[in-house]
Amino acid sequence: MDFPSKLIENAVVELSRLPGIGKKTALRLALHLLKAESDTTANLAEALAKMRFDITYCLTCHSISDSTECGICGNQLRDHSTVCVVADVRDVIAIENTGQYQGVYHVLGGVISPIEGVGPADLHVDSLVARTTAEDSEIREIILAISPTMEGDTTAFYLSRRLREVENLNISTIARGIPMGGELEYADEITLGRSIVERQRQAR
Amino acid sequence: MDFPSKLIENAVVELSRLPGIGKKTALRLALHLLKAESDTTANLAEALAKMRFDITYCLTCHSISDSTECGICGNQLRDHSTVCVVADVRDVIAIENTGQYQGVYHVLGGVISPIEGVGPADLHVDSLVARTTAEDSEIREIILAISPTMEGDTTAFYLSRRLREVENLNISTIARGIPMGGELEYADEITLGRSIVERQRQAR
Repeated sequence: MDFPSKLIENAVVELSRLPGIGKKTALRLALHLLKAESDTTANLAEALAKMRFDITYCLTCHSISDSTECGICGNQLRDHSTVCVVADVRDVIAIENTGQYQGVYHVLGGVISPIEGVGPADLHVDSLVARTTAEDSEIREIILAISPTMEGDTTAFYLSRRLREVENLNISTIARGIPMGGELEYADEITLGRSIVERQRQAR
Repeated sequence: MDFPSKLIENAVVELSRLPGIGKKTALRLALHLLKAESDTTANLAEALAKMRFDITYCLTCHSISDSTECGICGNQLRDHSTVCVVADVRDVIAIENTGQYQGVYHVLGGVISPIEGVGPADLHVDSLVARTTAEDSEIREIILAISPTMEGDTTAFYLSRRLREVENLNISTIARGIPMGGELEYADEITLGRSIVERQRQAR
């Protein structure tokens, strides 16, 4: 693609480095910014730079935070005996939005993926083990809330191996099955099979 | 959506102002930037700000340019007697990529759209008329290359009304018809109808 201006070209090249944004979309975004008020671009550029350079992570759960202790870890009303282990901050936000979970979190920062060169040492695994084995630890349950993909299952398997020697610690995984609103006939065989094996007895 | 950090929230809000980017995509982009090298964010923020504040427009055709005369208007090898009128810089790039056009351009900066409050005065219409009626004008043909939407057709109609009094000026529109690779049975009736009425005689 030939661009009429070097400035546009630079903006398009940088925008198209973002995931899911190709050259055509990048050009559309750049031209939108050119047409919009100049404040829009100034605010966007500032917000991105500020986010990248000023962000801090919670020292306990490694979630994104504005200080060294995140709002969830610092909240004494939450159940600090239950830790939900997730791959990503996005998962924390998704689970928080359900309003169904009152415990705390531990963000791994990814999943084990040999193809992408991510091993257990690149994730916050050691600090999870340290949290559960600390003298004053009050953790009684670890919920593995990791996406049931190849990499996610490997990570969950590795974690349960590492954690199973910890005394008085229950390890659970989030339920897998047919999603709400999903049609049985379109579910894959593995999901449908598991949803039958792990069927839930109805309360009377 | 609740965010664990004000900085992330600001970035997501600003990103989701972009067209076609919702809150979820914005969050994915923000978290991608957090994981990537800090240079990625710095370069993106700088490229956007630089583009917005340093960009100039060609004084003749109103296309984006790095100086007051764009590379196309300044190129004496191009045919300055033919002007292709387009709504947007994107259209200039698209037509240039075909390699089929040797003339020059005139960028309107949008189309007439009463719903969005865009009238002829908001577009570069007067300067197009001025270009064609100037004493030393060498323009012999105007090609209206405006998308065949409701707004685009209105704009094309308005322009041909404004330009039809200019002497020795041919006005044409780009051909409409079945797109290459398109299936006849899926074409809408208006397109198919026009493609029959405006059929092309084959060269022998």
